[in-house]
Amino acid sequence: MTIAFIHEEIPTEQVEQREKVLSSLTDAVRDLVDATIRSTVADDELDAVRAEVEALAARLRAAQLPGPAGVRYNSEGRSWNWGNAVVGRGNAVAPPVDITHDEFGSAYAELTLGAAYEGPPGMVHGGVSALLLDQIMGETASGFKRLTMTGTLTLRYRRPLPLGPVRLEAQIDRESGRKITVEARIGVPGEDAAVEATGLFLIPSWAPLDESAASWSRSAEG
Amino acid sequence: MTIAFIHEEIPTEQVEQREKVLSSLTDAVRDLVDATIRSTVADDELDAVRAEVEALAARLRAAQLPGPAGVRYNSEGRSWNWGNAVVGRGNAVAPPVDITHDEFGSAYAELTLGAAYEGPPGMVHGGVSALLLDQIMGETASGFKRLTMTGTLTLRYRRPLPLGPVRLEAQIDRESGRKITVEARIGVPGEDAAVEATGLFLIPSWAPLDESAASWSRSAEG
Repeated sequence: MTIAFIHEEIPTEQVEQREKVLSSLTDAVRDLVDATIRSTVADDELDAVRAEVEALAARLRAAQLPGPAGVRYNSEGRSWNWGNAVVGRGNAVAPPVDITHDEFGSAYAELTLGAAYEGPPGMVHGGVSALLLDQIMGETASGFKRLTMTGTLTLRYRRPLPLGPVRLEAQIDRESGRKITVEARIGVPGEDAAVEATGLFLIPSWAPLDESAASWSRSAEG
Repeated sequence: MTIAFIHEEIPTEQVEQREKVLSSLTDAVRDLVDATIRSTVADDELDAVRAEVEALAARLRAAQLPGPAGVRYNSEGRSWNWGNAVVGRGNAVAPPVDITHDEFGSAYAELTLGAAYEGPPGMVHGGVSALLLDQIMGETASGFKRLTMTGTLTLRYRRPLPLGPVRLEAQIDRESGRKITVEARIGVPGEDAAVEATGLFLIPSWAPLDESAASWSRSAEG
């Protein structure tokens, strides 16, 4: 099974311009997702809006990729994964998450989870917490300098997590050969964790142990 | 912290009519999410579409719930959780998943995961597998007849899972007092599992051990 990164020789400046325009559209689609969940307008208005949404999708599909967005990079070392389900700038399913990494194997993110991420009434879906934790732990394990794959994730649910502002934290706990253990948590900022996680990540036997210049491994986790 | 189910006295027939109209709109929004990820039309067209999407969201917001959709039920025993992140009929973040349960504590679902669920290039995001598994395991633990909460989830990633058709399966492994252990897996239909999961679910000490007639507990998992 091939996991292919795509080399696309677009100047970084153009990548960033496109990312900006795409992000604005995606933010609008994300808002439409929320409005669809919460709307109480009459059925015929829902139907009328549906027809308009279909027409807009057709306009976007006038020219499109044949499949998923994948992960792309240019020779300047810029990479982009706009389709990623957690951090993708073009993916309205993604909250999206902005993860800050330090050089010592720690990472954090703060974001607000709205109506689209609900599980129990008013609460973040337990699987959404798992989704976000998987992403931050994978990025922390790889540090964007090596290829890692998730081996095992263990999630301990301590208390319900209300929809609203949340904080994610992760750090490398230990490393041994090709195994990296990461600890992480998600919760209301400033409060005890709602979900704690331990992840075992693996550097595949065919991949180098460290590849500091490998821009193609950036954001490949998930 | 209160997890409140909302009693809303709407006849089942009306609930089902609304669900049908809402599902159609949501399918269209889901398609727009995919088209946004994959579109390669010019920047100015993306901008023009964005303005139209914003206008449609405003139309939907002309009348709306003050917050998330929650879980609602009527006195006929019909319940609906249209905002749920995995199974919600009004939530374009949800694939959505149709889960079939039998009376012996087993469940399965088949669905197709597209570009919006990508992690590694061309592959299902590991956290999306976790999200789907959490939902099917929670439903299996509760069986829609008792209130359960996720205690611990352990996910073992065996191999990458390509975007496309997937199958989920879950069954109760054992029960003891207020503890229920569920085993589950996700993979390409007919092939070995890509991710295997074990979940420990708990019936809270304040909740009854079995509540066959409790429609309000239906779909409360997640």
